[in-house]
Amino acid sequence: MAPNAATATRSDPQLAMADLPESVAHEVAALAPNIPALYELYFGVPMAGAVLSALNTRLDAAMLALLLQQLEAKIICVDCQYVQIVLKALELISAVKAKSPFLVVIRDSNQGAFSTTQEVPPNSLDYDRLLEMGKHDFEIGSPIDECDPITVNYTSGSTGTPKGAVYSHRATYLNSIAQIFRFEMSAKTVFLWTVDMFRCSGWCFTWAMAALGGTNICLRNVTAKVIFDSILIHKVTHLCGAPTLLNIIAEAPYAGHRPLATKVDLVIAGVLPPLEIMNNVHKLGFNVSHAYGMTEALGLVTVTSLEFDQDDRASIKDRDGVHNVAMEGVDVKDPTTMRSVPADGKTIGEVMLRSNTMMLGYLKNVHGTQDAFKNGWYGTRDLGVRDPDGHIRIKDRAANAIFNCEGNAISTLEIEAVLASHPAVEATAVVGRPDERLGESPCAFVKLKEGCTTSSQDIIEFCGVRLPNCMVPGSVVFGDLPENSTGKIQKFVLKEKAKDLGSLCHSNGHLVV
Amino acid sequence: MAPNAATATRSDPQLAMADLPESVAHEVAALAPNIPALYELYFGVPMAGAVLSALNTRLDAAMLALLLQQLEAKIICVDCQYVQIVLKALELISAVKAKSPFLVVIRDSNQGAFSTTQEVPPNSLDYDRLLEMGKHDFEIGSPIDECDPITVNYTSGSTGTPKGAVYSHRATYLNSIAQIFRFEMSAKTVFLWTVDMFRCSGWCFTWAMAALGGTNICLRNVTAKVIFDSILIHKVTHLCGAPTLLNIIAEAPYAGHRPLATKVDLVIAGVLPPLEIMNNVHKLGFNVSHAYGMTEALGLVTVTSLEFDQDDRASIKDRDGVHNVAMEGVDVKDPTTMRSVPADGKTIGEVMLRSNTMMLGYLKNVHGTQDAFKNGWYGTRDLGVRDPDGHIRIKDRAANAIFNCEGNAISTLEIEAVLASHPAVEATAVVGRPDERLGESPCAFVKLKEGCTTSSQDIIEFCGVRLPNCMVPGSVVFGDLPENSTGKIQKFVLKEKAKDLGSLCHSNGHLVV
Repeated sequence: MAPNAATATRSDPQLAMADLPESVAHEVAALAPNIPALYELYFGVPMAGAVLSALNTRLDAAMLALLLQQLEAKIICVDCQYVQIVLKALELISAVKAKSPFLVVIRDSNQGAFSTTQEVPPNSLDYDRLLEMGKHDFEIGSPIDECDPITVNYTSGSTGTPKGAVYSHRATYLNSIAQIFRFEMSAKTVFLWTVDMFRCSGWCFTWAMAALGGTNICLRNVTAKVIFDSILIHKVTHLCGAPTLLNIIAEAPYAGHRPLATKVDLVIAGVLPPLEIMNNVHKLGFNVSHAYGMTEALGLVTVTSLEFDQDDRASIKDRDGVHNVAMEGVDVKDPTTMRSVPADGKTIGEVMLRSNTMMLGYLKNVHGTQDAFKNGWYGTRDLGVRDPDGHIRIKDRAANAIFNCEGNAISTLEIEAVLASHPAVEATAVVGRPDERLGESPCAFVKLKEGCTTSSQDIIEFCGVRLPNCMVPGSVVFGDLPENSTGKIQKFVLKEKAKDLGSLCHSNGHLVV
Repeated sequence: MAPNAATATRSDPQLAMADLPESVAHEVAALAPNIPALYELYFGVPMAGAVLSALNTRLDAAMLALLLQQLEAKIICVDCQYVQIVLKALELISAVKAKSPFLVVIRDSNQGAFSTTQEVPPNSLDYDRLLEMGKHDFEIGSPIDECDPITVNYTSGSTGTPKGAVYSHRATYLNSIAQIFRFEMSAKTVFLWTVDMFRCSGWCFTWAMAALGGTNICLRNVTAKVIFDSILIHKVTHLCGAPTLLNIIAEAPYAGHRPLATKVDLVIAGVLPPLEIMNNVHKLGFNVSHAYGMTEALGLVTVTSLEFDQDDRASIKDRDGVHNVAMEGVDVKDPTTMRSVPADGKTIGEVMLRSNTMMLGYLKNVHGTQDAFKNGWYGTRDLGVRDPDGHIRIKDRAANAIFNCEGNAISTLEIEAVLASHPAVEATAVVGRPDERLGESPCAFVKLKEGCTTSSQDIIEFCGVRLPNCMVPGSVVFGDLPENSTGKIQKFVLKEKAKDLGSLCHSNGHLVV
């Protein structure tokens, strides 16, 4: 590639961040399943000079109200299926805000006209009627600056309230093109919309498919029947989504009977389900890849093809595939020194990204944005190692420190919340500690308030009455907590410490330090 | 695509042009065939923070001296095959300039070490020795601004002295990615280097192939044997070049005997040879496309697949294919008003381009650059029409071919096609000749087949029954046709000749020479 063209001036997120407006002008929100209208909005809204935010259709009214307020959406395009929840959200907003956004209601073409008997506010319009009002000589709006926002994409909020990642025209342009050759797509590609179109602007496949002139198969509901029918009828070449997609496919009644006639590429992002399920999906003829990514990076960062041996056993290649050229840098760094960790396959650091294909920042969240980027690098909060061949391997989710306890994934955030309520505790961090019997057991690192004293036993008992058994810390370590330069606790350091606790004495199954 | 992201600030060539330095700092020139060393220079030179200019290996010493002087190259990397001509050029330069550039000599690995007995100036270095001197901890240089120059690419000079089109990191980055999905390339692509690597930075396939991690097959000489052997041994998937490549393939002794086992994409840019030759190439299994492009646009602009009917007759689709997304705008405009011509398939205008994938401008030629761009659009000097479906069709080269005859724009290509069908004609070129009464009248230059004779009158009558009156040549000149180094007929030379024909006698309205 033109060497490091991507590093030049415009790619510096810090720079872009400084430009990020506190609010996005001309915001259009959308709440719809993967239907053609939503796909169209990804083009029509930017062409009209506005910014689109397709919202998670699984949000409740309260969260929806919160996000709509943050967005200050002037128009909400809502599928008939979600009119009621949007009205409820608007009712919540109306308590604090006088002017309501304009509603555009998208009818379900398969179920006839939108029922006018449904309670819809007077200032609303039918989507098809809106299209009819379009002018043929309408001049398509171009962004004044290519770094202007094009969409706002909310994170899933697994670590708190969803954050609105703002994407630029430039970033989505480059990432869309990158998607095309990452998945060897062509004008012959038939893309089945099993991934939420509201998620990372549909992983940028929205624009990628249009750039190719390929075929989109939209779905109102993702079911096994629709998937298999679409593959058969429309000759689907690509589909992707969350791990649940594998379950839907593997458990389908069709699964055993209909081996695919053609090669279908299936990309799954997230924690993979058991090998057995993948095995079944592979046997059906799907070409399964595993992706690592996040909303802040416009969707996918790295993609790893899964290999299957002669016995059809999936061997998940532990490494996370080579990233594409649009993603300039994927590195594992010590977040304090910002130096790359040695490529020894052992030293843990934070996975960091640097690219033109990153968000500009979080909407109305200067602090969050500043926190996310460091020297132009985006900190993923994921822990990884570098292998000698230059590949990286993701080890853990640093930010929310999930670990296994008797097979349960536990968020340490909940344990930390209880610990923080203890009168003597100033700060705390919980990590998983290897435990022969339990897999991992919670290990609490506690910094006490000045002049306070307490015992491990007291802390454990305090948690015992407030948390389920498997979430009660098995070990408590007192002392200062290692922080990085921005005051963030370095959980990966604590994880190593917890490992080293080794064979210290324990009473009643709890190790007490 | 992210709608019109490409139009934003950075794409304005006028802007970029203003930034274009009068001379390029740290210039490295290269003179070599399509060997691995030249490919490497496309990466090593920019990574060292310098600008590469690979020069046409068919230039004579005088022209070479001229370009080297314009480039102010500090280093010249020269293949052993071209050491003598470079020394001759440097001798010419030394007359006006004291300091000579540093020479790096590339040996032909197939012919042993570079002979030290050859006369090489003392300040020169063996290329392999240079590589050995490289430091492992060398820090790759990034451009300060992504619009900084990366290469200087000379035009073929068919309309005069070659002009040095300066490419930026940004433009080559985008065009390289565009090449990938324009030709549906992947990591499995095996690219045979039959197109000159010095031409438009190898049509940007240099960087495209690296971005893919595909396979490059380098060639010192392009012969039919090497082409067919490479396809067989290396499983070549793509090759491209000038129309002569079709002749080499079609006329190969292997052609009849070795139908290709695999699909091979062959892209030809320039005037296509007769259908018969294409037919033969198609029959061998090549998938032939025809490209329209120019040095100023980093190589290819549009690509049209050729269709072959059941009888293996090639039907050259008259239209010039849809351009790729990286090329933002391809339009046919009235160059005076800058308005698009009506999409009626008839009204002739100038083909104009607007894109991030254009040159920054011509080196040390502010006037030429200003002349080339108008309101951000690059004027190709090619004439075309717009079809009702939005496609464009190239009619002729404006700069040297089209002229006005009683107010009509006439394509000389159509006249040339008729002339070429005359049994005695081997080659022909038609230019406009100033005519007081008509404005311009067609003047035909004709080279006859060996042993053939005919008269001007015969030629004129031959055209008279086949063409409308205003397209019948008023003058016919017999003799050899002037060609440039790539075998392209130099119409500008003929235009001058036609002008000089002056007031020679004419009968019945036709000037006969």
